[in-house]
Amino acid sequence: MNASDNGRDNAGVQSEQRASAEGRRYNIVSVDDHVVEPPDVFQDRLPAHLRERGPRVVSTGEADVWEINGAKHAITGLSAMAGRSFEEYTPKALRFAEMRPGCHNARQRLVDMDTDGIDAELLFGTLAGLAGGTFIDLAAQDAELAMACVVAYNDWLAGEWCAEDPARLIPQCILPLWDLASAARELGRCIGIGHKAALLPGLPHVFDLPPFADPAWGPLLGACEESGVPVALHIGGSIGRKQAAETLGALGPDAGVPAETLVASAPLTNYGVLANVLFSGVPVRYPQMKIVSVESGIGWIGYFLERMDWTYERHRFWTHSLLDEPPSHYFRRQMYGTFLVDDTGIETIERIGIQNVMWESDYPHTDTTWPKSRELIKTHLGHLAPEVLHNVIAGNAVRVYGLEES
Amino acid sequence: MNASDNGRDNAGVQSEQRASAEGRRYNIVSVDDHVVEPPDVFQDRLPAHLRERGPRVVSTGEADVWEINGAKHAITGLSAMAGRSFEEYTPKALRFAEMRPGCHNARQRLVDMDTDGIDAELLFGTLAGLAGGTFIDLAAQDAELAMACVVAYNDWLAGEWCAEDPARLIPQCILPLWDLASAARELGRCIGIGHKAALLPGLPHVFDLPPFADPAWGPLLGACEESGVPVALHIGGSIGRKQAAETLGALGPDAGVPAETLVASAPLTNYGVLANVLFSGVPVRYPQMKIVSVESGIGWIGYFLERMDWTYERHRFWTHSLLDEPPSHYFRRQMYGTFLVDDTGIETIERIGIQNVMWESDYPHTDTTWPKSRELIKTHLGHLAPEVLHNVIAGNAVRVYGLEES
Repeated sequence: MNASDNGRDNAGVQSEQRASAEGRRYNIVSVDDHVVEPPDVFQDRLPAHLRERGPRVVSTGEADVWEINGAKHAITGLSAMAGRSFEEYTPKALRFAEMRPGCHNARQRLVDMDTDGIDAELLFGTLAGLAGGTFIDLAAQDAELAMACVVAYNDWLAGEWCAEDPARLIPQCILPLWDLASAARELGRCIGIGHKAALLPGLPHVFDLPPFADPAWGPLLGACEESGVPVALHIGGSIGRKQAAETLGALGPDAGVPAETLVASAPLTNYGVLANVLFSGVPVRYPQMKIVSVESGIGWIGYFLERMDWTYERHRFWTHSLLDEPPSHYFRRQMYGTFLVDDTGIETIERIGIQNVMWESDYPHTDTTWPKSRELIKTHLGHLAPEVLHNVIAGNAVRVYGLEES
Repeated sequence: MNASDNGRDNAGVQSEQRASAEGRRYNIVSVDDHVVEPPDVFQDRLPAHLRERGPRVVSTGEADVWEINGAKHAITGLSAMAGRSFEEYTPKALRFAEMRPGCHNARQRLVDMDTDGIDAELLFGTLAGLAGGTFIDLAAQDAELAMACVVAYNDWLAGEWCAEDPARLIPQCILPLWDLASAARELGRCIGIGHKAALLPGLPHVFDLPPFADPAWGPLLGACEESGVPVALHIGGSIGRKQAAETLGALGPDAGVPAETLVASAPLTNYGVLANVLFSGVPVRYPQMKIVSVESGIGWIGYFLERMDWTYERHRFWTHSLLDEPPSHYFRRQMYGTFLVDDTGIETIERIGIQNVMWESDYPHTDTTWPKSRELIKTHLGHLAPEVLHNVIAGNAVRVYGLEES
């Protein structure tokens, strides 16, 4: 695999032609999909003196594994299961050759998107972590290398992978959060090269970062608000050096609970992220900021807004709450949840907000709706009024991420 | 305060007279309320050689604090807020004299229940922990003392406090879970003295207990099934020696997240308990067992059943699932959720199961509906069909806990 495999000449041109013939209009936008970084991302971009320590792929015979500064980072097979039957799902780390090429090859991704009828995808990484946590961890050992990796990832994602068709492959940047002033600068640079959202961990303390209520976050959060670029809080985005045992709480891998418990629970873990962002007063201080809870499902949000409002009503005195209004006020004004198939969420959509939910396909993870997205949309959302349906599967995303239609 | 304050002569007799005049019929049953153990519970009951080390109340001047085997156990004020305005809520530990007497005095509790129109309450402790965790922790230092404390608590709750009116004050037993064979025997003894449910932690590993899939649980879980006594899994029931930092996961007290985050999130933490019990195969092996998720709210359960079924469908092959059917099958057959005010839960009640939800008042905690329970029931449940309403606020509880009507 190398950069020319991405073949930005063919598929990209075809897409643009198609788009210009029809006028660009997004019919189905997925706000949560993943790239599996191919082996050349970092070695092609790091300064010469950092290459040796920087991320490189080594083969263990059974799997292709990343090595960073001497430490091995295996990628669970569950991150690259698109196209497999459920019987073939495995957590075992894979070789790139065992993955569906659309996992790591942009041209092939566009082909897979065509198969599934997906017009655009908002992209997260794999090695990088769901909020860049791999490099936040790395910074504790080697901040120079970590910063170079963040820049390399952001450059590669926007400048190479998504350049394959920038209207359909939408990059979201990771940030050097161990240095919040630099993070604000990197955000500005990323917006300049086409990134449409910033990834943040919802529980900063997991990375020993200051809480959101700390003024240190001001420059970055202010820049997010001012630029209009949404903040995406993906489930698992707070998995870092303290790892799942703490992030998933008592359900961590040492807990002796069945693996299905962890898988079933993963989306719902973002309840704490929602509550933390809200009760830390982020939307109070940044009323224009857009905040997206990604892959968390939506069927519990109606309940949780009620619960947070109830808590605010009863506890705001002794807690010296940072909010001026009940939490649901801020959620409906500027927060969003995303889902794949969620009948309870759709049944209760008016409690969440018709403008506040966005559909996703989660390619190529185990949850992915690929290649049955249109069928599942028809089955589970087909009863919605046409304008509501359009908002949920495209219109809200176009508005939130500022995608351009013509 | 002393035992005679409980005055079992007056209020108890009045209640029984009222009940016998009308025939005993439960109109409002709350399945989650708390006693604040009064100071004499353990000192009156422990064998002489254990009294010195056993739980006793000492005054710090500002608060009455329990001392057990030399260690202090403060009780948060948030556990005894019934009757206060929200402005007066405080986490500060209190003196007994600052609490509403119904917190610790059974006769006064019955008066408060009359004020609020509550026919019966299912009771949990305070010092004891929500699944007896205080004594599971103690057993690691002094198993003899811990066992005596468990027995004393169970004897006191059924034999003294609830004896004030056994048809209205319903005891639930704690168990010496560090010795699962003894726990099965203690369950049998407790059923004999009137206990109607057994409290278990939903995440046994927090107490270094074997996972539910381990055969060591067989005698106890088998006894629960055989006797028909439900297992109550109260939120926070897995807080023990590993404490909130791990049990509430990344939201623990050291997390630097606002206190409201913890309060708002507490009910939802039981999602992991539900998933653990289900995916550990407990309802598969014990199809007659009744399992209650207490104080967890219900508005997220419809979503989570969908999510668990989705997970089971996709992941059951590589996980070698212990289930034969999707999780929702077992939930609807034998599992229950409880709530105070939960409009989303009621809107989605058919997804959860009309037979599977029970109302609670949570006296005297901060969430309590006291003394407005009837008003809140009318406002939030008044639109339900009469037989559904009756099931939700009484009938389901009568059936699940085996309360006797005449």
